[in-house]
Amino acid sequence: MGYPETFTGFVIESQSTNPTFHKAELKPKVFEDYDVDIAIEACGVCGSDVHKITGGWGPCSLPLCVGHEVVGKVVQTGPKVSTVAIGDRVGVGAQISACLKCENCQSNNENYCPHMVDTYDGRYPDGTVSQGGYSSHIRAHEYFVFKIPDNIESAQAAPMLCAGITTYSPLVRANIGQGSKVAVVGIGGLGHFGIMWAKALGAEVYAISHSPSKEADAIALGASGFISTCDADWHKPWAFKFNFILNTADAADRFNMKDYMSTLAVNGTFHHVGLPDKPLPTMSAFNYMPGGYSTSVSHIGSRVEMQQMLSLASERKITSWVQTIDISEAGCQEAIQRVQSGQSKYRVTLVGYEKVFGKTALVTQLPKASTLFTISHVMFEK
Amino acid sequence: MGYPETFTGFVIESQSTNPTFHKAELKPKVFEDYDVDIAIEACGVCGSDVHKITGGWGPCSLPLCVGHEVVGKVVQTGPKVSTVAIGDRVGVGAQISACLKCENCQSNNENYCPHMVDTYDGRYPDGTVSQGGYSSHIRAHEYFVFKIPDNIESAQAAPMLCAGITTYSPLVRANIGQGSKVAVVGIGGLGHFGIMWAKALGAEVYAISHSPSKEADAIALGASGFISTCDADWHKPWAFKFNFILNTADAADRFNMKDYMSTLAVNGTFHHVGLPDKPLPTMSAFNYMPGGYSTSVSHIGSRVEMQQMLSLASERKITSWVQTIDISEAGCQEAIQRVQSGQSKYRVTLVGYEKVFGKTALVTQLPKASTLFTISHVMFEK
Repeated sequence: MGYPETFTGFVIESQSTNPTFHKAELKPKVFEDYDVDIAIEACGVCGSDVHKITGGWGPCSLPLCVGHEVVGKVVQTGPKVSTVAIGDRVGVGAQISACLKCENCQSNNENYCPHMVDTYDGRYPDGTVSQGGYSSHIRAHEYFVFKIPDNIESAQAAPMLCAGITTYSPLVRANIGQGSKVAVVGIGGLGHFGIMWAKALGAEVYAISHSPSKEADAIALGASGFISTCDADWHKPWAFKFNFILNTADAADRFNMKDYMSTLAVNGTFHHVGLPDKPLPTMSAFNYMPGGYSTSVSHIGSRVEMQQMLSLASERKITSWVQTIDISEAGCQEAIQRVQSGQSKYRVTLVGYEKVFGKTALVTQLPKASTLFTISHVMFEK
Repeated sequence: MGYPETFTGFVIESQSTNPTFHKAELKPKVFEDYDVDIAIEACGVCGSDVHKITGGWGPCSLPLCVGHEVVGKVVQTGPKVSTVAIGDRVGVGAQISACLKCENCQSNNENYCPHMVDTYDGRYPDGTVSQGGYSSHIRAHEYFVFKIPDNIESAQAAPMLCAGITTYSPLVRANIGQGSKVAVVGIGGLGHFGIMWAKALGAEVYAISHSPSKEADAIALGASGFISTCDADWHKPWAFKFNFILNTADAADRFNMKDYMSTLAVNGTFHHVGLPDKPLPTMSAFNYMPGGYSTSVSHIGSRVEMQQMLSLASERKITSWVQTIDISEAGCQEAIQRVQSGQSKYRVTLVGYEKVFGKTALVTQLPKASTLFTISHVMFEK
């Protein structure tokens, strides 16, 4: 078979810390009225893919095709789709469905819908397992399909759809802006976005890292300063400094959290965007007490936030620091290894889809006017 | 000796889960320009006193006179004191000093001043150990002295000065008001205030407790509903309900936190106001993720918040549920035991100071007009 009956993807058949990928046919969900089919041209490789493939987050459906930073062209739209048209270049992030009826969905919090379906290894109400973007196509409800601004290349846009929104959403929900002092812990796939977004939102940003070699990158990304945690007393000059610490490091269980907390201003927040396999460090109420601190965690972001983020990136010409790898069995393996070892600077995107999957789907209609970008401050570079 | 050279208090000489108290002379700090001496007439008995006396919070200075919910009459004022006058009925809470110069102090966050001095077992810059309110007098910088509204009895006002402000401050800092849904966990000394304040601030309030016998009290205090945690599935009907959970229970390490978290609305906060001897429960980021939740802790409140709280209590005629015990060696012991066993409904105040300490200090000047209460909505009942 082939599209539209099946999609073709690179799948793992077992969870392993040294995964192998095989080309396989994938059965998509039934095509419904609000669904959009996308012929994929790029997919970012996310830390989540590693957690899932290695079993760090527990067992998964097998065989599984991962990938939730998907960019491609719309090749089919359901009869009720109104926000994108065939031929549009669009993206799909880490969430592919929600009930869109509950109180969370109705309040622009569909990223916290109890009925959400993850873009891969999720389960639709009919039992179909969702499959990700290391594949020829993806099928998504239009609510989870986002137009990509013309001036953002697909390989750049891809990592914004998970790493980008994951760091953007908590910053805007914490009202970060002019006058805020933000620290970003960990200069990697997530952290490099954290610095760029916080800076773009108007904050004074500092990078906190145990890798002094990353100082120049942090400054280039927009940080006003670089704080190395190699020194035992690193935190002392920064007492009560930051309104918000965006922690992108997966190693919070190895942190001396009290030191990090002490750099928070009164009522400041230490926010985790990573989801470590292991529990967070055990804390005492006394660790939070000296400044009335809080700890929080977030999960991706909402459609509205995704649109605002893409507009901001377009307007300010914010680009991901991305390395590309051509998709193939070996390419998927290499990409995962590079993310797993933390050696990518700072994000990896799989590209070259046409070489593997061919021109699998024809654009059969001309693009129609989109109604998606209605945010007033959007000013695309033409 | 005696006042003003020394104060007389009931002290513990060793930490014990079954403490005994002895009358002893206490050497106060040097009297300075902004200091106020207060002849005490009532002192609330706080859970903190129990933690300190039993050693749950670690070792303390000995001998020690505890008590940080102090109400009495001003009997001496330093030459620079302008906010209270001799004869005024005033209160002192759990904080007796701060630098008043740092960024925290200058931003109405003196309750998070790194140089703060606790009302007892604190240490002034000159080395003097602060001694609490189970005694004849207390000496405090005027910044930590609060006029008590005329329509709040001393025994009622006392517990507001720690338990009251400890629950009031986090509610106002979380912008609790009309439209908020608040749950208060634990119906005790702190919790009964939490319900009353949240209700007075305009929120819809629910009480969560493992003691179904407290339902009637919770409703009488202002709760719209009572949630018993005795049923394993107690949390299910309350999914995504509360914007803010005020946890006053000291047993958070025994909670199934995931159940509590699941009752929070998106981006809701589980807030601890108790400071348990033991660490908080170990959490995974996955416990916070389903709603983008946060956990926070606070420490008492600021002067501004204390004034607002007393005004609110006066205006709305909010009164603590208080049992009184006459101060004496046996009385202190009984009071501590009653708080320790959680049997008080819901707060204990030591009274009858004159019987023990006599009229230790004369009011030597007439009261002058106070400049303290300038908040516009204060309407005292005369």
